[in-house]
Amino acid sequence: MLDIVDDELEQCAARRLALLAAVRAAVGADHVQTDGMTLERYGRSTAARSMRPLAVARPASHEEVVALVTVAAAHGCPVYPVSSGKNWGYGDACAVGPGQLLIDLSRMNRIVHVDAELAYAVIEPGVTQQQLSAHLRERGLALWMDCTGAGPDTSLMGNILERGFGHSPYGNRLQHVSGMRVVLANGETLHTGFGHYQGARATHLFPYGVGPFLDGLFTQSNLGIVTELGMWLMPAAACVQHFLCSVEAPDGIGAVVDALRPLRMDGTLRSIVHIGNDLRVISGGRVFPRALAGGMSRLPEALRTQMREAAGAGAWTVSGALYGSAAQVAAARAAVRQALRPTRARVRFLDERKLALAALAGRLLGDCGPGRRLRAQVALGEALLGMNCGVPNGRFLAGAYWRRRGALPPSFPDGADPARDQCGMLWISPILPMRGADVLALHALAEPLFREHGFDLFVTFSMINERALGAVLTITFDKQDDEETRRAQACYRAVFDAVMAAGYLPYRVGNQSMAALDPQQDSYWKTVARIRGALDPAGIIAPGRYEPAVAQNLSLQLQSNAFVTGTR
Amino acid sequence: MLDIVDDELEQCAARRLALLAAVRAAVGADHVQTDGMTLERYGRSTAARSMRPLAVARPASHEEVVALVTVAAAHGCPVYPVSSGKNWGYGDACAVGPGQLLIDLSRMNRIVHVDAELAYAVIEPGVTQQQLSAHLRERGLALWMDCTGAGPDTSLMGNILERGFGHSPYGNRLQHVSGMRVVLANGETLHTGFGHYQGARATHLFPYGVGPFLDGLFTQSNLGIVTELGMWLMPAAACVQHFLCSVEAPDGIGAVVDALRPLRMDGTLRSIVHIGNDLRVISGGRVFPRALAGGMSRLPEALRTQMREAAGAGAWTVSGALYGSAAQVAAARAAVRQALRPTRARVRFLDERKLALAALAGRLLGDCGPGRRLRAQVALGEALLGMNCGVPNGRFLAGAYWRRRGALPPSFPDGADPARDQCGMLWISPILPMRGADVLALHALAEPLFREHGFDLFVTFSMINERALGAVLTITFDKQDDEETRRAQACYRAVFDAVMAAGYLPYRVGNQSMAALDPQQDSYWKTVARIRGALDPAGIIAPGRYEPAVAQNLSLQLQSNAFVTGTR
Repeated sequence: MLDIVDDELEQCAARRLALLAAVRAAVGADHVQTDGMTLERYGRSTAARSMRPLAVARPASHEEVVALVTVAAAHGCPVYPVSSGKNWGYGDACAVGPGQLLIDLSRMNRIVHVDAELAYAVIEPGVTQQQLSAHLRERGLALWMDCTGAGPDTSLMGNILERGFGHSPYGNRLQHVSGMRVVLANGETLHTGFGHYQGARATHLFPYGVGPFLDGLFTQSNLGIVTELGMWLMPAAACVQHFLCSVEAPDGIGAVVDALRPLRMDGTLRSIVHIGNDLRVISGGRVFPRALAGGMSRLPEALRTQMREAAGAGAWTVSGALYGSAAQVAAARAAVRQALRPTRARVRFLDERKLALAALAGRLLGDCGPGRRLRAQVALGEALLGMNCGVPNGRFLAGAYWRRRGALPPSFPDGADPARDQCGMLWISPILPMRGADVLALHALAEPLFREHGFDLFVTFSMINERALGAVLTITFDKQDDEETRRAQACYRAVFDAVMAAGYLPYRVGNQSMAALDPQQDSYWKTVARIRGALDPAGIIAPGRYEPAVAQNLSLQLQSNAFVTGTR
Repeated sequence: MLDIVDDELEQCAARRLALLAAVRAAVGADHVQTDGMTLERYGRSTAARSMRPLAVARPASHEEVVALVTVAAAHGCPVYPVSSGKNWGYGDACAVGPGQLLIDLSRMNRIVHVDAELAYAVIEPGVTQQQLSAHLRERGLALWMDCTGAGPDTSLMGNILERGFGHSPYGNRLQHVSGMRVVLANGETLHTGFGHYQGARATHLFPYGVGPFLDGLFTQSNLGIVTELGMWLMPAAACVQHFLCSVEAPDGIGAVVDALRPLRMDGTLRSIVHIGNDLRVISGGRVFPRALAGGMSRLPEALRTQMREAAGAGAWTVSGALYGSAAQVAAARAAVRQALRPTRARVRFLDERKLALAALAGRLLGDCGPGRRLRAQVALGEALLGMNCGVPNGRFLAGAYWRRRGALPPSFPDGADPARDQCGMLWISPILPMRGADVLALHALAEPLFREHGFDLFVTFSMINERALGAVLTITFDKQDDEETRRAQACYRAVFDAVMAAGYLPYRVGNQSMAALDPQQDSYWKTVARIRGALDPAGIIAPGRYEPAVAQNLSLQLQSNAFVTGTR
């Protein structure tokens, strides 16, 4: 009996060795890592659940990705591709299941082409926000990219393929993509749009091509590995103004959403408008004040009020930007003011000139309280204006660090890395109709659940398109505290289930929820499974990723599986 | 030997009868037609190639479509769904192959829902442009739909699923669709986006849902039959101005395109801008002047110049609209004027007030030449302004009637139906980068081929998005003239091959070109075929439609097949 087990183990080890040898042959031994420290680092997650890969391979080219997929298919080993592995709050670099060969695409970081006239870039998966932003500025091009708040070192492509959203008029990111190059599970290379025709001139200018439009298949999916993508860039606007609007009363936000919706819909507000609650402002640049909170994991109400007042914030802050010629921006500014007048919300407009004046005043005021406050406000304003124009900033990740013990690390905000820094964070991202009533209803649904579980609700509502809001509810927790971690997981499940049941469905989910996406075994997921069966019958690429039935199986395996690392 | 043939024929007839009985049971006998006149009418095409269906079934509901697909699958009979069958110039109501059961969805014409607050409609396939436009006006809603020039009686959904484009800021139509209901070949019903979740609140507000985004699969494809679709509506703008810009010199259009591109890209021009050559203007409201052309099938140069001058047109006319508040439109108008100044193009702006004044002047001038000309211009201006605000008009189909014998029929323009009226028309629609150089290059490629084949080149270039132009090259021919029909087909092939070879690929093709879409047997079409195999292994829905390999086989069959009707 024991002999049989030994035999099996030996065979298993032999198969693993053969696989790794082939992987090394594909990308070079220097770019394959199997040591415990590396696997632990890639397996670490801001979520409560970590997942160690079998090994990490770092290909340098499309051809090496093809070779890796071919090798993996031959050995029957699943692969998990990540662009930079910084999918904070949704699983970071972790696969849905254990023992997958992690393909880290971050060495593939070529900006293949920037077309200054037609305003687009062709990029590889490893190109970061910082990299493209700097490239455009260094070349002196009057082009801006859309930014997210996920930090300078995150991959543009990774976020786009997860259908993330940004801040600018190009913030509905998938609408500004044209032409993908994809490695399929059988090792074939697929060019979408017109890209599969020799000499095509509009591959990166007209996404649809001719015939079925396939790009959507390769977003939030495991149907292929995208190795190149055309993304549109915004011509630099002559004039940009940021507006910040403060709403005092908690339920005052309903009227503000209804007042701004017509402007978002008629094109006056072309950019993504973000609405954050007071905690999103309070948490900027600082961690939870444990010393003052008397052992509670939530901010005591009096302290929260005091911090909100010190930050000069209302219950809600609305943040957006106006773009165009000076005349266009002036017209938009007047329209915003007029729309908000009946709501009693206070609105301020920021531009470079105003910020420069305030910065000067801040310096003159010196090291007194008002001087410090003004300088902090200037720094925030600069970061916001920068984001509007495609300059990424790590400071908007502060929420992830809120419950982490100790001060913000010195690497914050430029090198912010919540997974490395052992932050605990879970995101729940329901979509809701762009209506005040829905904002209030969702808040009323989520807030008591957060409270019950002992967490403060961090929430933003983003005007992701002209008709819908993308909410992000953040559970931020102390990963070093097992009890708090368990509470965070319970809170996540309670809120996730509640928003699903209420019809506020998530636009994106973390690995821990992949299995929960198909409660009705419906025809959509059957269709996706049939397509998966046609393109990747052996389930080589990222099994379980947006694949509920497989995720369910993996989840059952996990409950008794030695591959899994603990929650720390 | 003859006995065997007789046996086969008998079996074949028996199978046909059994199928038709089942089809009648599915939709009611009144809604199944097999008579020769009906089949001839549905088989008639503006293209040179007609295709008679086996029978026509007209379901009234989603459930009846499911029943039809199930019946057809059980009998192994392919079905060909059309919304209203008015796919002018690209195959009209004709399937790619003969003997298919035509499913005419025009009885499914419910406007299921209009949401006035969030500005969208949910429609069935049979809803026409005229119907939705009238519905919105009758209900007094301040919402506009996007219009195409294909005429009032054409289906909105049909055009959207073929990825047609319109005139307004919502003219890039696929970007304004959210939530499809689809009948699959196995009879299952698929809801895309969030629609497959019970109680989902944002199905028609946020298209992507969660997981792979499938909507693109059901455009330009045969992967399912869409029976319901959410389409976004535009909030009525406070102010709309149409602009018409006349470019005298044939090669002057290059500079104009380059001058307008930045305005299209920065959002000053949010609507689709259309650029037409002189023939597009000359052909408005009249047919080819045979009596003056001395037997030629092209306009003699002197006559063309004379007609152009009489119409007050340049070599090119640029036509677009500005939307917004009065201040926004004023700012945009100034930007357009300034951009065009260096190009020497003349630009005029039209709005309702100006048109009312001109109409008054036209009436006062009476029946003299200038009076008639002014009234004609007013009528055109009204039609253009109407299209901008979602009021369809048949007059933009005039080109289809250009070479048809006799005067324009009395049904023109309101009940324009080029297929019924025996018009001959073929469209070739290459996409090109939005650059003057590409416009001139494409024109230089196509014009000599049209000339060689004895046709005048009708061409429009539409700013279909911010970076690409959709060209439509029209071959309009006399279908009653066999020689001219053969020349038209030869011209089509020559131009189609030339644009493909030059990398100006079509965004959409007629049935006669489905087989030519995959010259390289590339991975894109292999992927589409695999998906087709997974969703419709028996090839029940519209075989050959955007399915090059199957279209190729059908084409070979056609060459010796009795099902095909002649070219008349």
